[in-house]
Amino acid sequence: MTGTAPAPLTGAPLAQALFAPRSVALVGASTDPVKASSRPLGYLRRYGFGGDVYPVNHRGGTIAGDSVYRSLDELPGVPDHAFLMTPTAATAQAVEQCGRAGIAVVTVLSGGFAESGPEGVERERALCETARSYGMRILGPNSLGVVNPYRRLVLTANAAFNEPDLPAGGVMVASQSGSLLGALLSRGRGRGVGFARMVSTGGETDLSLGEICASTVDDDEVTGYLLFLESLRHADRLREFARAASDRGKPVVAYKLGRSEAAAELAQSHTGALAGEDDVAEAFLADCGVARVSTLEGLLEALPLLERVGPREPGASPRSVGVVTTTGGGAAMVVDQLGVRGVPLAAPAEATRRRLSNAGIVAEEGTIVDLTLAGTRPEVMGAALDVLGSAPEIDLLIAVIGSSARSRPDLAVAPLVERADRDLPVAAFVVPEAPEALSMLATAGIPAFRTPESCADVVAAALARRRPSPYSAGSRPSEPGAALDEAGSYERLSTLGVPVAPFTVVRVGEPGPDGLVYPVAVKALSAELPHKSDVGGVVLAVEDADGVAAASRHIRSAVAAVGIEVRDVLVQEMRPALGEVLVGYRTDPHVGPLVLVGAGGVLAELHRDRALRMAPVDRASAREMLSEVSSFGAFRGFRGSPEGDLEALADLIERFSALAHDDDVVEAELNPVLVGPAGEGVVVVDAVVRVRSGGNGKEKR
Amino acid sequence: MTGTAPAPLTGAPLAQALFAPRSVALVGASTDPVKASSRPLGYLRRYGFGGDVYPVNHRGGTIAGDSVYRSLDELPGVPDHAFLMTPTAATAQAVEQCGRAGIAVVTVLSGGFAESGPEGVERERALCETARSYGMRILGPNSLGVVNPYRRLVLTANAAFNEPDLPAGGVMVASQSGSLLGALLSRGRGRGVGFARMVSTGGETDLSLGEICASTVDDDEVTGYLLFLESLRHADRLREFARAASDRGKPVVAYKLGRSEAAAELAQSHTGALAGEDDVAEAFLADCGVARVSTLEGLLEALPLLERVGPREPGASPRSVGVVTTTGGGAAMVVDQLGVRGVPLAAPAEATRRRLSNAGIVAEEGTIVDLTLAGTRPEVMGAALDVLGSAPEIDLLIAVIGSSARSRPDLAVAPLVERADRDLPVAAFVVPEAPEALSMLATAGIPAFRTPESCADVVAAALARRRPSPYSAGSRPSEPGAALDEAGSYERLSTLGVPVAPFTVVRVGEPGPDGLVYPVAVKALSAELPHKSDVGGVVLAVEDADGVAAASRHIRSAVAAVGIEVRDVLVQEMRPALGEVLVGYRTDPHVGPLVLVGAGGVLAELHRDRALRMAPVDRASAREMLSEVSSFGAFRGFRGSPEGDLEALADLIERFSALAHDDDVVEAELNPVLVGPAGEGVVVVDAVVRVRSGGNGKEKR
Repeated sequence: MTGTAPAPLTGAPLAQALFAPRSVALVGASTDPVKASSRPLGYLRRYGFGGDVYPVNHRGGTIAGDSVYRSLDELPGVPDHAFLMTPTAATAQAVEQCGRAGIAVVTVLSGGFAESGPEGVERERALCETARSYGMRILGPNSLGVVNPYRRLVLTANAAFNEPDLPAGGVMVASQSGSLLGALLSRGRGRGVGFARMVSTGGETDLSLGEICASTVDDDEVTGYLLFLESLRHADRLREFARAASDRGKPVVAYKLGRSEAAAELAQSHTGALAGEDDVAEAFLADCGVARVSTLEGLLEALPLLERVGPREPGASPRSVGVVTTTGGGAAMVVDQLGVRGVPLAAPAEATRRRLSNAGIVAEEGTIVDLTLAGTRPEVMGAALDVLGSAPEIDLLIAVIGSSARSRPDLAVAPLVERADRDLPVAAFVVPEAPEALSMLATAGIPAFRTPESCADVVAAALARRRPSPYSAGSRPSEPGAALDEAGSYERLSTLGVPVAPFTVVRVGEPGPDGLVYPVAVKALSAELPHKSDVGGVVLAVEDADGVAAASRHIRSAVAAVGIEVRDVLVQEMRPALGEVLVGYRTDPHVGPLVLVGAGGVLAELHRDRALRMAPVDRASAREMLSEVSSFGAFRGFRGSPEGDLEALADLIERFSALAHDDDVVEAELNPVLVGPAGEGVVVVDAVVRVRSGGNGKEKR
Repeated sequence: MTGTAPAPLTGAPLAQALFAPRSVALVGASTDPVKASSRPLGYLRRYGFGGDVYPVNHRGGTIAGDSVYRSLDELPGVPDHAFLMTPTAATAQAVEQCGRAGIAVVTVLSGGFAESGPEGVERERALCETARSYGMRILGPNSLGVVNPYRRLVLTANAAFNEPDLPAGGVMVASQSGSLLGALLSRGRGRGVGFARMVSTGGETDLSLGEICASTVDDDEVTGYLLFLESLRHADRLREFARAASDRGKPVVAYKLGRSEAAAELAQSHTGALAGEDDVAEAFLADCGVARVSTLEGLLEALPLLERVGPREPGASPRSVGVVTTTGGGAAMVVDQLGVRGVPLAAPAEATRRRLSNAGIVAEEGTIVDLTLAGTRPEVMGAALDVLGSAPEIDLLIAVIGSSARSRPDLAVAPLVERADRDLPVAAFVVPEAPEALSMLATAGIPAFRTPESCADVVAAALARRRPSPYSAGSRPSEPGAALDEAGSYERLSTLGVPVAPFTVVRVGEPGPDGLVYPVAVKALSAELPHKSDVGGVVLAVEDADGVAAASRHIRSAVAAVGIEVRDVLVQEMRPALGEVLVGYRTDPHVGPLVLVGAGGVLAELHRDRALRMAPVDRASAREMLSEVSSFGAFRGFRGSPEGDLEALADLIERFSALAHDDDVVEAELNPVLVGPAGEGVVVVDAVVRVRSGGNGKEKR
C-alpha cells in the first residue's frame, strides 16, 4: 500500500469521475458476446462514448475489434472510472489493483457482500478498507452501473439499455434496485421523460445515494431527481442532498418500498439493510422536502407537477384542489381518489362563479366545474382555465379531459397547452387512451396523468411537500439511555415550558404537606421503576394528608417485593380531564429525533393511530399532527362531546419537540397528558425522560 | 292510448331489441354533420350495420345520402329500437309517438330528468307512465346508447366511437357514466380487450343495469362483465344478474365510485341517486360474487384473472399468493401492494423447495422465489412455473418479469405463454414498458398487469371473490320500526340461540327475588327508553335484594323526570369480561339485511373499525368479519392480554344474522356483548330489537 492516500473525490469532481469520466476501464470484460460482461463495451461503442475505453481481462483477446488488456498495469493511461465485472471472489484483488493504478472511482457489479451473511460483511469491510487506503471511491457493490446520455456513457451490464437511443433530459434517476433502472428507462421513454443521469447505487458501502445525488446538484443538466428506495440508508447524506436540491429549486420525488410489513421484511432480507418503520421513513422524507409517491406511474409522472407547484410555506394551511372537466364520471374518479388521500377540495367561491358566469360558463353548485360534452370547446375550456387557475381559493386546478382528448385534442387539450408558459397551477388527467394529447402536454411541460390513482397520488404528494426543515440534528448513536425519575423528568420538561401537574416529593411515612389540593395521586419515586403502576407503586384518589402517609407505606412494601427500595413518593394533584393522550420523543439511529402523538391505550396501538414527525416541529406542524390522529375527533365535538384544548396540546408538542436541541436526551414519554376542555389547557401527569448514560442528567434524589 | 298494452320485453328478446335490432329509428337525427345527433347514422353506415335504419326529423332533408323521414308515421316498418336525440322538452311527445308506433325499446339521450330537480322528476315519471302504457321499455334517460361490434351496431352519439374499427371480443361493458364508455373502449383497445356489448345505462328509470346485463347472460358472445358504477341502484336486479352470471361461470368485475365521502356526495349531486355508505355497497357486491376493484387499470385488466381463478368456496380459508421473479425490486413493489391490501403471501413449503432444487433452482429463504438475472432463461422460468404453479400452498402464482420482458420476451415471458392452456393459476406483472410481451400474454389469455398497483388490486379482488350468497332477502321497505323493550328483545334473540345474560323482571319497589347471583344491574324496562342510561334508568353493581328495590325506586323517579312511567325493572347478573363489542343488524332499503360487528364506544366509531356483511352469514364469514376489526387484536393476545372467546362471538354473529329470515325485524342492536376468556363464551347484556310497526312484535309487558 502507498504511504499517504490522496484525498478521496467528493462533490463535482466525484460527479465528473462517475458520470463524465474522460476514460473508463472495463475490468473483467468478456470476449463472449453472449455474456453480460461483454455488454458495456458494446454500449459505449454503439452510443458513441467520446472518451477512452480500456477493456481488461487476464485472458486478453479482442471484443468487437477492441484489443483487451491483460492487466491494469498495461493501460496507456489512468482511467477516471473502472467498472468491475469480476466474480465476487476476484473483486478484492481487482479493487486493490485499481487503487494501485490510481483510479479515482470503481463501480463494483458483483454481489455476495454484506447482503449474504457474515462472510460477505467481512469481504465488504475489507473492500472498503482497501479503497480507503488509496483514497478511492466505490459505487456498489451490487451496482448495475451509471448512465449519462449527454456523454453517451452507458456504463452498465443491464440488458435494458439495448435500445436504439437514450432519451436525454433533465431527470436524474437514482435507484437502490438496479433492475428497476431498466423499467424506469422504458416507462419514462413512453411518457416523454428525458434522463440526465441514471445510477444504480447498490449496496452503498462507500458512495451513498445521497452523496451521489448531492454531487450533481450544481449541474445544470440535472433539473430534478427521481429516487427508487428499497429502504432508508445513510439518512444524513440523503438529508444534505435534499436540502441542497431544495436550495437550488430542484424537486425530488421518491418511491419507497415498505408501505406494508410484508415488503419491509422483504427489503431487509433482500438488501441486508435495516428496514425500519415505514412511518419513520415517511416523516423523514417529508421533513427533507422530498415528495413521496405510492404508485409506480406517479413516480414517473411527478416531476412536472413538482416543478409547477412549489413546496408549501411553513405554517401555511393545507392547499386545496379545484376540478374542471368535460366528463363528470372521469372527474369523479379523481375526486374519489383525492378524497381517499385526504386532499382538500375547493369549490369555486362566489366571486369565482361570477367570473365564470361572465365568461359564459354556468357552474352548478358543488366542487367540480363540469363543462359537459357541450362545453368541450377551446374557448370554453380556455376561459374556465383562466378563471379557475387564478382563483385564490384554488391552489391547484386539475383539468379532467374526456374522450375528446383522443379524437380531438384541439378541443379541450389545446387550451392547456396554449397556457403552458403562464404560471397557472394546472395539471391534467386524460381519461381515454390518448397518446397524442399526452405527448402534446408532456412537450408543453403541463403535468399530465394517465390514471386517476397516479393523478391523486402525485397531487397529494405535491401539495403536502414542504421546504426541508432548517433544524434536525441528524442521526444519533443508538443507546438505551438511563431513565430519570419522575421528578427529574418533570424538571427537564419544565425547562422547556411543558405544563406539568403540580407535585411535591414526600418521604415515605410522612403526611401530605400543607396546601395540597386533594384528591392526590401518590407514586413511588424511583428511576428504576418506569412502569410503577404494574408493581403496586401507585395509589390514586388519596383524600387527605394522613392518607398520603398510609399510601406511601403501602407503596414501599409493594415495591420492596420486586427488590427496589422506595424512600420518597411523588404526590400529585388529580384533576378531571376530557381524555388522555400519549406524547413521545425518541432519537432514531438513522434519521434522528422524532416526536409522536397518539391516543393512549392498547386500542390506539392496534390502530396505529398516531402521528409522527421529525423533531423539532413548529406550531403549524403540531396542529397538523393532531389532525392526523383519528381518535382526536373525540376532542372536536364528535357526537356532542365537549371540545378539548387541542391548541394547548399543539403548544405542548411544539415545546416538547425542542428536546431535539438537547443532545443529552435520547428518549422521553409523556403518558398520559390530560386534555382539558377548550381554554383549560393540558397537563402532563406522568413522564419518563431518558438521558445519555454519560450525560449530566443522572441526578440522584 | 291503446287499450291493453303488450307485455314489455324482458330477457333474451329484450337483449335482441337492445343490442341486435333488425331495424332502428334515429329520432331527432340532424342533417348538420357538425352536430352530435348526426353521428349515429354516420357510425351505422361506416361500420356497416346490416339492419334497416330510419332517420327521423320533422325538418326532413337528407343525411349522407339517406332521406330523413318527417315523422315516425311515415316509416315503412316498425323499428325494434328507437334512439331518441330530441331535446328534453320534446322527449315526452317523441316517446308517446314511439309507443303509438309499437316500438319495443327506446333509448333516451337527453338529460334534464330526475337528476335536475322536482320538475325533472315529474317529467321522468310521466315518461315512464307513457312507456308503460304501451308496454315499451326505456333505456336512459341520459343514456349515450348501445354498441354491439358483432352486429356492427354503434347506436350512440358519443364522439369516442369515431375510430377505424371496433375490437370484438367477450367483454360486456355496462356503465352508469356514459362518458366513461369511450375511455373504456380506448383503454381496452390498448390492452387487447375485445368487446361483446357496451351500454350506457343513464338514469335507469326503467331498464336497470342489472336487468340489461341479465338479459345477455345466455348469449355465448358474452363471456364476462365489466361494470362502471357511480352508485348502487336497483340492487335487487343487480343481484339477480350477478347470480345468473355466476351460475353460468361468467365473471363480473366492478369499479364503483364512492370510496371517499367526497365522491359519494358527488355521485349524489351528479346523478340524483342516493349514494349510500360505501361499505354497504362493498358488502353487497361481495355478497353477490362481484369482484370490486379500486383502480381504473385494474377494471380493464381483471377479467382474464377472474376467468382463471374462480370464486372461493364457502367456508374455505383465505387464499394465498406465491411470487416468482427475475427482478427483486419489481417483485417487492407487488408484494408491498399486496401487503397493503392484506393479501396473504405463501412462502414455498419444504416439499416445494425440494422440487425446485431438483429442478436446479436454489430458492433462498423467504416468500419470493428470485431467479435473478442469471435465471432469466426459459428452462429456469418454465421449471419454476411448473413447480410453484402446482404447489398446494400457493393458490395463485404471480410471475414478475423484469427488463428482459421488453428486449427478450422469449426468455421469461414465453414460458408463461407456453403454459397458457394448462390450468396453472398464474398471472404476470411486467415491470418495464413491454408492449410485445403484454400482447403475447393477452393473446394467450394469461392475466397480465401493467402496474404493481393494478396487479395487487385485481389479485386481492379475485382471491376474495365468493360465490353469490344463496340467501339474501333482497331490499326491504325502509321504516323505522317500533322498539321492543329489553325483555322482549331478549326473547327474540333467545329463539335464535343468541346467548343472553340471565335476567328477571321485577316490579318497581320489590326486592330482588331469591336465587339471584349478585352483583346485579337494575334497568328501567320500557320500550320507550332505548337510551335508558342517559336518563338515570340504570343502576349498576347492586349488591343485594333490598338494593334492587331501592334502585328500582330511584330509577322510577329519575325516568319520571323525562315523562315516562316505569313499572318494571329488568334485573341482570353482572359478570366480568375481557371486553365489550357491538353487534348490529339492519335492513337497508336498497340492498337488504346487513349484520355488523365493531368495537364499542366512540373511538371505534371514529376509526370506523367495524366489519359489515349482508345477512345471514355462515360461521366462516363471521370469523372473517372478526379478523377485519383491528381492535379485536386485543382478544388475540396482543401485548400479552388474555385471549377472548372469538369463536363464541363468531357463533353469536352467525345466529344473530339469521334475523334476515325474519321479515318482522327491521333493526337490532346488541350493545354491548361481553366477551369472556377463550372457552368461556360471550353474552349479550343489553339489546334493542325493532320490529315492523304493523308486525306481531308489539308485545306489551
